[in-house]
Amino acid sequence: MTSTDKKVGNLPEGKHEPLTRETAAAGVESVLKMLEGRWKLVILFHLFGGQVMRFSELERAIPGISQKMLIQQLRQMEDDGIVRRIVYPQVPPKVEYLLTEWGQSLCPVLDALLNWAAARPEQEQGETSGDQLGA
Amino acid sequence: MTSTDKKVGNLPEGKHEPLTRETAAAGVESVLKMLEGRWKLVILFHLFGGQVMRFSELERAIPGISQKMLIQQLRQMEDDGIVRRIVYPQVPPKVEYLLTEWGQSLCPVLDALLNWAAARPEQEQGETSGDQLGA
Repeated sequence: MTSTDKKVGNLPEGKHEPLTRETAAAGVESVLKMLEGRWKLVILFHLFGGQVMRFSELERAIPGISQKMLIQQLRQMEDDGIVRRIVYPQVPPKVEYLLTEWGQSLCPVLDALLNWAAARPEQEQGETSGDQLGA
Repeated sequence: MTSTDKKVGNLPEGKHEPLTRETAAAGVESVLKMLEGRWKLVILFHLFGGQVMRFSELERAIPGISQKMLIQQLRQMEDDGIVRRIVYPQVPPKVEYLLTEWGQSLCPVLDALLNWAAARPEQEQGETSGDQLGA
């Protein structure tokens, strides 16, 4: 038994509203949808740690992305409340991107996901015969 | 400042291998892909907490799912090492499903995701003028 076994119950017990199995699943699904797409995660990992980046810096930092796609992804992340856009009123305009406090707080959660993935056993036995359990 | 601010750095620091921004993003993406699809999450939330369920019980518990889809989802989760299938050698055969220890340990991680989603501020200001920052 690991320490996690003690913490897990039938359903997660957290700061959120009481959940049924269905609303919990739907809640996780909506978070997954929000993060879907390779670029959003790459953008997130570039901005974690309080990084502030201009559009052109992000463009250079993510070689595979098109300008149009970067604009689209940043706009969606802004609308979702993950990214904040700062426009400096100067000519030519200077625009910077950073994470909101809420966006920044996703970092330890994604870290937990990575730790979970890294803890995957080498060879997990998919099928067990009832015989082996003494049935 | 919240307590999470202290924990977050440029990149997650966990038990996993040292990561670049790109490998971290790809790692999270592969976990998201593994959980993609509404049914897998619903199945997970039905099996969290050490639940052991027969195929017919899962079928009844998830009204919207077809038999074919349930078989497919369970098979994929078995292949991923999340679900364990126990076959009892009797006539008619009895087949039970439960989570592996690794699958079970996903519960607190999904809980953290739900807590993160629940902590979303009511109205997050997407765009900030540089003026407001004294620029």
